[in-house]
Amino acid sequence: MRCFIHFDDKGRVGLPNSAYSEYNMWFQNGDAAPPGTVPAVPERILNHWDNMDGTIERGYSGKSLFFRDGTISYDPERIKLYARLLASVGINRVCFNNVNVTPRAARLITGEMLPALGKLAGIFRAAGIRSIIAVDFNSPVLLGGLPTSDPLDGKVAAWWENTAVLVYKVIPDLAGFLVKADSEFRDGPAALGRTQADGANVLARALKPHGGKVYWRCFVYNCEQDWRDFATDRPKAAYDHFFPLDGAFEDNVILQIKYGPSDFQVREPHSPLLGAMKRTAQALELQITQEYTGQQIDLYALAAQWEEFFASPVSGTRRARDLIGREVTAVAAVANTGDDLNWTGHTLAQANLYAFGRMAWDPSLTAREVLSDWIGLTFGEGPALREPLLDMMLRSRDVYEKYTAPLGLCWMVNTGGHYGPSPEGYEFSKWGTYHRADREAVGVDRTAKGTGFTAQYDPYLQALYDDRETCPEGLLLYFHRLPYTYRLKSGKTLLQHIYDTRFEGVEGVEGFIRIWDGLRPLLPGSAYDSVAARLRRQLANAREWRDVLNTYFYRKTGVPDANGRIIHP
Amino acid sequence: MRCFIHFDDKGRVGLPNSAYSEYNMWFQNGDAAPPGTVPAVPERILNHWDNMDGTIERGYSGKSLFFRDGTISYDPERIKLYARLLASVGINRVCFNNVNVTPRAARLITGEMLPALGKLAGIFRAAGIRSIIAVDFNSPVLLGGLPTSDPLDGKVAAWWENTAVLVYKVIPDLAGFLVKADSEFRDGPAALGRTQADGANVLARALKPHGGKVYWRCFVYNCEQDWRDFATDRPKAAYDHFFPLDGAFEDNVILQIKYGPSDFQVREPHSPLLGAMKRTAQALELQITQEYTGQQIDLYALAAQWEEFFASPVSGTRRARDLIGREVTAVAAVANTGDDLNWTGHTLAQANLYAFGRMAWDPSLTAREVLSDWIGLTFGEGPALREPLLDMMLRSRDVYEKYTAPLGLCWMVNTGGHYGPSPEGYEFSKWGTYHRADREAVGVDRTAKGTGFTAQYDPYLQALYDDRETCPEGLLLYFHRLPYTYRLKSGKTLLQHIYDTRFEGVEGVEGFIRIWDGLRPLLPGSAYDSVAARLRRQLANAREWRDVLNTYFYRKTGVPDANGRIIHP
Repeated sequence: MRCFIHFDDKGRVGLPNSAYSEYNMWFQNGDAAPPGTVPAVPERILNHWDNMDGTIERGYSGKSLFFRDGTISYDPERIKLYARLLASVGINRVCFNNVNVTPRAARLITGEMLPALGKLAGIFRAAGIRSIIAVDFNSPVLLGGLPTSDPLDGKVAAWWENTAVLVYKVIPDLAGFLVKADSEFRDGPAALGRTQADGANVLARALKPHGGKVYWRCFVYNCEQDWRDFATDRPKAAYDHFFPLDGAFEDNVILQIKYGPSDFQVREPHSPLLGAMKRTAQALELQITQEYTGQQIDLYALAAQWEEFFASPVSGTRRARDLIGREVTAVAAVANTGDDLNWTGHTLAQANLYAFGRMAWDPSLTAREVLSDWIGLTFGEGPALREPLLDMMLRSRDVYEKYTAPLGLCWMVNTGGHYGPSPEGYEFSKWGTYHRADREAVGVDRTAKGTGFTAQYDPYLQALYDDRETCPEGLLLYFHRLPYTYRLKSGKTLLQHIYDTRFEGVEGVEGFIRIWDGLRPLLPGSAYDSVAARLRRQLANAREWRDVLNTYFYRKTGVPDANGRIIHP
Repeated sequence: MRCFIHFDDKGRVGLPNSAYSEYNMWFQNGDAAPPGTVPAVPERILNHWDNMDGTIERGYSGKSLFFRDGTISYDPERIKLYARLLASVGINRVCFNNVNVTPRAARLITGEMLPALGKLAGIFRAAGIRSIIAVDFNSPVLLGGLPTSDPLDGKVAAWWENTAVLVYKVIPDLAGFLVKADSEFRDGPAALGRTQADGANVLARALKPHGGKVYWRCFVYNCEQDWRDFATDRPKAAYDHFFPLDGAFEDNVILQIKYGPSDFQVREPHSPLLGAMKRTAQALELQITQEYTGQQIDLYALAAQWEEFFASPVSGTRRARDLIGREVTAVAAVANTGDDLNWTGHTLAQANLYAFGRMAWDPSLTAREVLSDWIGLTFGEGPALREPLLDMMLRSRDVYEKYTAPLGLCWMVNTGGHYGPSPEGYEFSKWGTYHRADREAVGVDRTAKGTGFTAQYDPYLQALYDDRETCPEGLLLYFHRLPYTYRLKSGKTLLQHIYDTRFEGVEGVEGFIRIWDGLRPLLPGSAYDSVAARLRRQLANAREWRDVLNTYFYRKTGVPDANGRIIHP
């Protein structure tokens, strides 16, 4: 039996010492499988977005486990526990520092910080986990004092080679470098007139002799778009930038691709870049930390979303999970852990870390299977707790979606913080994030007749998405611009569907509170209390979303709720 | 001739040494008038919102002149210059630190920092300027270690008395303490179940033996309002909180009241609290720093707004300027200065500091008189430069208003930063800032039939504002909710007026650029360059405002521009 996080008799979390030997048996070699199973992909990666000042970008579980005040600083006992905890669910690669590499973090690959980083890596090595370092593409300038970071410059290549030698002396099993380049104001090859392949390859050639890889993120798009520009369509960006370069990358470059073409929204189609390149290694990037999905205040069991993702078609004959272990040779995710006592802020968000490990190992698992296992391992096997809790967790994504942006509309969140509603917060911004709602209609037409985004999919999916009758209803407003009077399959108008689901979302949270309160006698006190408090904050958030979105669309349309419920004017 | 800021032959700013004696002659006693004039009020106050880390809240002119890295730190030569510069326009009170008092700044009244503060105050004293310290209402707890700051607690009163003794030993001519209490999450008496008068009086009694005053801000409102709450109306807050307390304040308390009931928006009516209290001393608070008025990127000569304010009626028989020197015994303003070489970021924003001093001294001055003087003192007397520049500055407020929120609508700005358009940025917030635009109408009805805000004015003004035919057109949407089809006096619909003025606003900025470029040969190079660069940024901002607001209202109404100009869909 694989173990995850247990509560001790005081309700504090911890791993029982007796379990350690078991984890080591299963996972001490990193890629070793638990008896009777083999992992779908050799690399199952956790990306921490931890800054060296101790903050975590999009972190909702306290401070960094690794860094404090500009230095590598941690509790070795807790880190040992953490490494084994990750290993226990099959995670075998960890990047400690944020892909948005600060000037301080850029120095992790220098002699100044490598010894301490090597020590940290050693703790994870003991659990069978290899380390990754997020590096700044402009390091040759920042650290090497070179006049340029041009990847075609011989001195730049030599600088990366020397750096790799230095790094591998200290961390001989380093899995590689992770790079966010030409993305959201970060330096990259494009600014120097070079391709993404040029940029990735210079690092890859430096790492190759040491067995290292470059994890090169594909989150490249124009983040200074003009909202008046209807031709540019952000979801097209990753494919447009990378697909033409298929075959141009060194074989130890892995392109790391977000699961959807936007940015970890509640519902997106899969990225058309995934699986499209036949001569380039690919990593799938998921997000465990709940940036747009409730920030570990709202309950959101990501397993449901991931099950749906892996089961969704990427062509007429293949599903996303069929890519895993073939075109996609690594699965990465942004961590949701921090130094909160329960690791993940929301205690039930532990299940998201657990589910990531399990589903990266075996993408054919269902959310029900994975969550059921997690509940058993965490709270015990009794069905009196398991069944209601499982029900609540399995419905949590659906409930969250029902009170937030509807039908694949994205970005109706507060800017900056990304929690809570602001229907037009991103509407006139430079981030390429528009729904263009007016008094008649809402959504962006991304079909062949619109921005042409659907042309990036295979013909089967293109046809499926282009036709609003066959387009999956949950993605209707991702692909189509539709009038509020449009009839859904339920017979309801689009507007009435929006109203109804907003009300249902709040009712769903009210239901969660009833379930959780009913489970109180079966739960460790600290777990009950902290989740109960968060559920009440979630209810306030859900009501705010419901009322703001309903009012927003009511003000646009002037059409009241067909069932006469309160919509504020 | 009073001098202000001169350019030397290298285009750098400075005060000619030869002028110092002249300022001292006029202003060495603070209240001494230039030959032949007497000031309208004895206290003309500058409030700096400088933090001790060197940042300036809502500052757009560099870092603090007084503080750096948590300490009092300044260039004594520059501060001498600055004190004389302020004195040269009649300013005779200065508060150095932000009304939002940080824990560090709270310590300014302790023995740790008083010696350094006393030295700084001494420099201003030499120019005839008395100092004010912004204090934290909760100081007895924060600094004194008392269990409460309850103003009715004897130990609290004693603590303030002892503190006053300590402070006045070091700064014997201190003008007093400035307090922001019970406002935007700051501590105050209300949280302790005491009145604003209780809170102000405990400080006042401590300062009275030393000749000091309490400047008690009236910016008290519910900043956690529910947008669904149509009964609460933020503009009513100051009057509701303070008017009932008239007569309850010690005679050395001055209530400091913002000129308008909102918060330094481009156009507001005067605060109904101003002049309403007959037994309480009042200070008028203006804002020189351009928080909502272009942030020293956009040209905005505040003299035009202040002239209009002073000339506006506060009853059927009195104008705002008639209050000055009677009910209103002090005029304060938030500073726009910082350590930028030209003091104010935008060189032409120097005129706002100058105009504040002049108009606080004599509220009957016109913008034309004041700006004409400033231009002459700064750039010389030649009419070739003066007339075009004067024209541009006099029109600048009108132009800014034309591309930003129309007809007294407020808060259509980006949240947090307050620069640039976000029509619904504050629409669902907790700040009490709503315009409630829907597909038919826009604005909040603040008349007797609406929130009842107009009942706070005298009957003459109440009737004037209540009737949309007599309400000043610039304030139409401050007081009324109107359909987009409402006809203005021009015969245009409200919507067409919004479109037309947005286009005119941008044309106005284009005109400024032509004027400024034409003046190039007459200007010091550094002044030309820096203003020219800012005008181009202003033009980009104006275009963004025009297009976002036009699109926003077009999407709401579906009605195109009557003149067929481009409105993006």
